[in-house]
Amino acid sequence: MECSIARTLDAIGDRWSLLIIRDAFYGVRRFADLQRDLGVARNILTDRLQKLVDKDVLERRQYEERPPRFEYRLTERGRDLVGVVLAMMRWGDKWTAEGDHPVSIIHTRCGHVTKPFVACSECRQELRLDDLWADPIPTRADRLKGPLDPVG
Amino acid sequence: MECSIARTLDAIGDRWSLLIIRDAFYGVRRFADLQRDLGVARNILTDRLQKLVDKDVLERRQYEERPPRFEYRLTERGRDLVGVVLAMMRWGDKWTAEGDHPVSIIHTRCGHVTKPFVACSECRQELRLDDLWADPIPTRADRLKGPLDPVG
Repeated sequence: MECSIARTLDAIGDRWSLLIIRDAFYGVRRFADLQRDLGVARNILTDRLQKLVDKDVLERRQYEERPPRFEYRLTERGRDLVGVVLAMMRWGDKWTAEGDHPVSIIHTRCGHVTKPFVACSECRQELRLDDLWADPIPTRADRLKGPLDPVG
Repeated sequence: MECSIARTLDAIGDRWSLLIIRDAFYGVRRFADLQRDLGVARNILTDRLQKLVDKDVLERRQYEERPPRFEYRLTERGRDLVGVVLAMMRWGDKWTAEGDHPVSIIHTRCGHVTKPFVACSECRQELRLDDLWADPIPTRADRLKGPLDPVG
């Protein structure tokens, strides 16, 4: 079933693609640096970078003329993935941390270490799964609305 | 570089895995229904379901005795992926929608259609990329803190 999530995965839905995007947020933008950090084969890195450029998530920018050298920058569309990355980071911190020290995210506007959460645009409360319906449920034959992860 | 995001991708970082999780949120839990909805090969679906069970994102539950039939339910850990899925849905609605009608998410607590956003746990404002630092930046050799997607 086609939907926003499926199309998002077409753009970024791959382990290496998402790790490249993570590194871009951390300021790692050059081929050699990405390769060293990720330990990924050159051909795979070349392929994923090209796909991310094709999907307008990264742009290739020359930073040196002689020899010509390029780096990969997040586009506006790529920068807007920060919510996806933060949501993944929080889930990983909570469920997979295995006792290691997670990266802290500092919200410079309020000055605090933040634990990002997904909030409602209308009432600004945290969205909890039990309080969410989808309209329509696209996988239902009748396409009626209904709760997410329904009971029974 | 190992981090929460990398470990999250180990658990769910695959197009099919994430589409299976999406379908689970929509109440599609049976092998035949998943296969029909996703149009995925049986062997791939079998493999991804097993991996999601191994990673404790889904659990296999018998719902019929004769013949024995099973469905795949989100565990607590799996249910907690709702933030990741909502963040992906929002990004896809914004950047890939191609004019089609997105699924509305209704927040039953306040009764409104919600546009989920990622908020700060401390000041409850929306987190914008320009206001975020990571501490440390794990990809930096000196592991100092610094802004996400740094300028320059």
